[in-house]
Amino acid sequence: MKICRFVTPENPSPQWAIIRGDELLPIDDPFHIAITPPARSIPLSDAQLVAPAQPSKIVCVGRNYRDHAAELGNPMPPEPLLFLKPPSAIIGPDQEIQLPAESDRVEYEGEIAVVIGRKARRLASNPLDYVLGYTCLNDVTARDLQRRDAQWTRAKSFDTFCPIGPVIETDLDPSTLIVETRLNGQLRQRGAAAEMAFPIPFLIRYISHIMTLEPGDVIATGTPAGVGPLAPGDAVEISIPGIGTLRNTVRPQSPP
Amino acid sequence: MKICRFVTPENPSPQWAIIRGDELLPIDDPFHIAITPPARSIPLSDAQLVAPAQPSKIVCVGRNYRDHAAELGNPMPPEPLLFLKPPSAIIGPDQEIQLPAESDRVEYEGEIAVVIGRKARRLASNPLDYVLGYTCLNDVTARDLQRRDAQWTRAKSFDTFCPIGPVIETDLDPSTLIVETRLNGQLRQRGAAAEMAFPIPFLIRYISHIMTLEPGDVIATGTPAGVGPLAPGDAVEISIPGIGTLRNTVRPQSPP
Repeated sequence: MKICRFVTPENPSPQWAIIRGDELLPIDDPFHIAITPPARSIPLSDAQLVAPAQPSKIVCVGRNYRDHAAELGNPMPPEPLLFLKPPSAIIGPDQEIQLPAESDRVEYEGEIAVVIGRKARRLASNPLDYVLGYTCLNDVTARDLQRRDAQWTRAKSFDTFCPIGPVIETDLDPSTLIVETRLNGQLRQRGAAAEMAFPIPFLIRYISHIMTLEPGDVIATGTPAGVGPLAPGDAVEISIPGIGTLRNTVRPQSPP
Repeated sequence: MKICRFVTPENPSPQWAIIRGDELLPIDDPFHIAITPPARSIPLSDAQLVAPAQPSKIVCVGRNYRDHAAELGNPMPPEPLLFLKPPSAIIGPDQEIQLPAESDRVEYEGEIAVVIGRKARRLASNPLDYVLGYTCLNDVTARDLQRRDAQWTRAKSFDTFCPIGPVIETDLDPSTLIVETRLNGQLRQRGAAAEMAFPIPFLIRYISHIMTLEPGDVIATGTPAGVGPLAPGDAVEISIPGIGTLRNTVRPQSPP
C-alpha cells in the first residue's frame, strides 16, 4: 500500500491518502487506517504530493555503507553514528532545495528512510512491527561546514535540506531495498540495504534504546558512495524501486 | 508574566495557563494570549506543572562559557557550536531523570533556555521580538558517550535528558539573567548571561539563518563551569532568579 500526503488547489491543508492506481483515497490518519475507511476519491492528477511525514524527530545514521565512509576518508564507526536533522528542514517532492549563502559546497546524499508506525521504546524484538513503511530521503549536507564544525548540526539543518517522499510504501521487505541517486538524469549513487553495516531492524532497535520513537518519526539509514555537489538548476532524484522517485530541483536561497 | 503548562488529577491532558499569585488562569495558547482572556482560575496547589514547552526542535549551544570550555579542555569555537536534542527527551519539573544502562557517567548541565514566540526566519534585526520568554533547562549528558562518539547525539538524547521548567517568564532582560545549579542543595554552577561568548540575541539571529524557528521551539544557551555526575537518589536544581527553580530527582532507568 502506498500512503501519501497531498494538497489541492482548493485545499492547501495537507491531507493523508492511500494511492490506488491514479486515484487518492483520503484517510484521517495513516497510523489507524483500519478504522478510517476511505469514503471518496480524488484524481491523482488534481493533487500535489507533499512530504509524507511530519516527524517529531529525524534520526540519521552516518557511515552505514563502507564505500561511502571510504570515499570521505573516514573509518567505520563501531556502533551506529547518530545525528539529528530538524523537522524545519523537510520539503516534499518537486519542492526546491535552496543553497544557503553560508556554504560553498552543498551535496546530495540519497537514503532509504524508515517511517515509524507506533511508539517504540527500548525494543527487545520484532522491530519491524513498529514500522509504517519506507520512503526516499535526501540528506542534503553543506560538506564544507560539516568538515569545519565540530558537530554536523549546522551542515545538515538548513531549511530545505531534508527532501522526503514521494510516498510511504508499507509492503516491502527492507532487506531487499535498493536506493539510487541521479543528478540531471545521470546515475551517481547506488546502494543496497543488504550492504549496510547496521541493517534496518538493528538500527530501529538500537535507536529505540536511546530515544522513544513516535509514530511518524523518520530514520534516515545512511548514504552509499557517490555523493557530490549540487548547483543551481540541477535536478536530483532519489529512487527506490517499489516506492518511487523523489525529485527536487536546486536554486540559490532567496533573499531574506 | 509567568506562563506554565499543568495537569490536575481530574484532567491529565496538559493545559496552558498564566500564573497569578497562587492561582492558575488557563489560556488556550501562549502565542496568542491577547485574544484568549482567562475565564476561570485554578488553585496552583491543585495542579502539577509539566514541561512548559512542546518544541518542534531543541537547538543547543555548546561551549558558550569560557570557563566551561576550559574545564573540559576544549577550545572556544569561532562560531556558535550547535547541536540538537530530540523532543522525546523532555521532562517537566519534579519528574525523574533516568540513568541509562549504556552510560557510566551522566552529568547535569544547568542552562538558560529561550522559548520562541513567533516564527523566526533569517532575522536581520530585533531578535528578541521573536521570544516568548525564558526558562530553566538541564542539558543532561552521558559524558562517557559524548567523549567516545564522533557526534554528541547519543550522549544528549536519552529519554528524560531534557528537563525544562518550571515556568516561562516573559518579562525579563536576558542580558541580566543568572543561572545556578545545585546538587543535593549544594551550589555547583553559577553563570551569568553577560559572560556568554555569544549573547542570546546573537544566538537567535544566528540560528534563524540556518533553520526557521517555530513558536515553542527552545534554544539552550550553554552551560557554565561546574558540571558533574549524577547518581541515583540525587536531587538537581536549576535556578534562574526571576523565573524559579527546576527540580528533578535521579534514579536508574527502569527495566524495559
